[in-house]
Amino acid sequence: MDKNRVEAFSDGFFAIIITVMVLEMKAPHGTDLRALFPVFPVFLSYILSFMYIAIYWNNHHHLFKAVSHINGAVLWANSILLFWLSLIPFLSAWMGENHFSQVPVVLYGIDLLFAAVSYSFLVKALLAFHGKNSILAKAIGSDSKGNISIVLYILALFLSFVHPLIACLLYVGVGFLWLVPDQRIEKAIK
Amino acid sequence: MDKNRVEAFSDGFFAIIITVMVLEMKAPHGTDLRALFPVFPVFLSYILSFMYIAIYWNNHHHLFKAVSHINGAVLWANSILLFWLSLIPFLSAWMGENHFSQVPVVLYGIDLLFAAVSYSFLVKALLAFHGKNSILAKAIGSDSKGNISIVLYILALFLSFVHPLIACLLYVGVGFLWLVPDQRIEKAIK
Amino acid sequence: MDKNRVEAFSDGFFAIIITVMVLEMKAPHGTDLRALFPVFPVFLSYILSFMYIAIYWNNHHHLFKAVSHINGAVLWANSILLFWLSLIPFLSAWMGENHFSQVPVVLYGIDLLFAAVSYSFLVKALLAFHGKNSILAKAIGSDSKGNISIVLYILALFLSFVHPLIACLLYVGVGFLWLVPDQRIEKAIK
Amino acid sequence: MDKNRVEAFSDGFFAIIITVMVLEMKAPHGTDLRALFPVFPVFLSYILSFMYIAIYWNNHHHLFKAVSHINGAVLWANSILLFWLSLIPFLSAWMGENHFSQVPVVLYGIDLLFAAVSYSFLVKALLAFHGKNSILAKAIGSDSKGNISIVLYILALFLSFVHPLIACLLYVGVGFLWLVPDQRIEKAIK
Repeated sequence: MDKNRVEAFSDGFFAIIITVMVLEMKAPHGTDLRALFPVFPVFLSYILSFMYIAIYWNNHHHLFKAVSHINGAVLWANSILLFWLSLIPFLSAWMGENHFSQVPVVLYGIDLLFAAVSYSFLVKALLAFHGKNSILAKAIGSDSKGNISIVLYILALFLSFVHPLIACLLYVGVGFLWLVPDQRIEKAIK
Repeated sequence: MDKNRVEAFSDGFFAIIITVMVLEMKAPHGTDLRALFPVFPVFLSYILSFMYIAIYWNNHHHLFKAVSHINGAVLWANSILLFWLSLIPFLSAWMGENHFSQVPVVLYGIDLLFAAVSYSFLVKALLAFHGKNSILAKAIGSDSKGNISIVLYILALFLSFVHPLIACLLYVGVGFLWLVPDQRIEKAIK
Repeated sequence: MDKNRVEAFSDGFFAIIITVMVLEMKAPHGTDLRALFPVFPVFLSYILSFMYIAIYWNNHHHLFKAVSHINGAVLWANSILLFWLSLIPFLSAWMGENHFSQVPVVLYGIDLLFAAVSYSFLVKALLAFHGKNSILAKAIGSDSKGNISIVLYILALFLSFVHPLIACLLYVGVGFLWLVPDQRIEKAIK
Repeated sequence: MDKNRVEAFSDGFFAIIITVMVLEMKAPHGTDLRALFPVFPVFLSYILSFMYIAIYWNNHHHLFKAVSHINGAVLWANSILLFWLSLIPFLSAWMGENHFSQVPVVLYGIDLLFAAVSYSFLVKALLAFHGKNSILAKAIGSDSKGNISIVLYILALFLSFVHPLIACLLYVGVGFLWLVPDQRIEKAIK
């Protein structure tokens, strides 16, 4: 099975999720800057979510670069990843509209955690199919960045009981960790 | 006529339908977990519909893999399939918001039935064009899985008069039947 | 300039327009069939618009099949066609919600007329670029179907002053005229 | 790294942004022409934004035509450009609904300015990667059109304090400046 249509479907999905989120920001009724105040937390939440979707897209892009073929397991691991990512617009809007209060922040973090675990399943499904000596296996290595992210998400969930903003800062932190696309893969391909 | 643009258009369509559905889940106003309670049935309905769209996409992907060319009849059979699938977000939201009561459940089932029949027309249009000795014809065989699904949908419609949840369970059951992509095609291509 | 990205952009556009329209059908609040009554005219309007977008996509698909290169004029003719088509979801919802009363029906028809004229400009821009002896020129011929459609739309606009439903029937009629994709192009390519 | 998936993702993004904007125009409740009056400024705003997205898409299309490879910096410059463009539907709706009053017009202009600056960063990231003697470098030249646009946006922001409509006219003016796709690139490729 070749990988082109999975890439096309996923690219379409990422492009839509990132765009559809902006629909959650309703145009306010007033005409002065103060009318924008209630939209501001939703906007912050939008920036965070935009960054996450862009990161997932970039890394997905890099991951499939090293992939030559796929199978049914990869197809489903990919669908499950997209499922968790598809909830981000909903949770992002809820979190923003409620000024980053605890419950929405926790659920947003759980969603990020599930997405990260799904991504690591997707990587495992690809590795199982390509074998230990493939370019992909060399490129991924120990996947320590993936594991650190999962640990940080769990930490964020616990610390959100101290203050939700600590969790939010950790989400931003994990984001920055991934801003640089996965250079292992670029190197291994060369 | 080559198949690339039909695949591209369909991939775009599937990616959008699956994403647009999440817009039907409105962010609730409260900030505690109880505020999520009214969203919960819509979320269940979303999971079911997400699974169905993902299944149709995966099988569509597999089906066109074995296809070499298309004609006008295939183009229209495909459009009709997409029409029935395009109603899923609307019916899914209605079914969820009304806690899976009978009328929405029946209409959701009728839509699934029409989509399944359209899919089997699409398969027939492709077979008529490719001939009985094509890879596709060998891959599809008797299409018993497609026929079983249609029977189960009709059964679900009748049993929804006993209790709508029986119909819902049957919808989930048919979904699981298709979770494994069509391996006949993968084998036949090899 | 090659045509691939214009096709990709247009495919994406058609896939989205056709999907976004379903968002105009809001899930009703009641749980019985009567709750669907107010949605019914919007649904009829949705079917008509779905058919039109599918027709434009199919014909656009066929048209670009015979095209080898594009230029800036084609790019802009295509953008203007997409602009008029992009108004269909809005006008379709307005027409449906107002039970096909006269003003929305007239505006819907004007939009169809402008889209048809833009399509014929797109054809002309392609012909001007490809020359009179190209496959495309042979395939298009006198474009009588395009001209008949424009005449029928103008007729529909006048007859809508007798009764809006006459105009609606004419819109459906023009649709059926185009349901068969442009076979001139298929023949000329062979 | 090859450029195909960035093009696909960006094409998807442009197609969605341009389509999603039409959702900001809600179907009015009345059935006569006067019912359309409140939608009219939103429609004007929609035309302006549609023109801008179409321009960015056309120029993005031309820019990547001259590009052979990309790197991480290009990927992120592209994502930042898409971020600013993704705010256009929100700001466009706000500006239209408030009849082009000053604050929305200024924020719309700031967004256009940031998008223009991001585009010029994207060009710089591509140039840094391709070198001074590449086709791209010859094609871009001094990028005077990009610089003029940035100056005109800043001018518009100042003149909006005299009257917001002057700013709007300048936005339209910059748009017309770009309506003709970047012919430098077409020439340099030849």
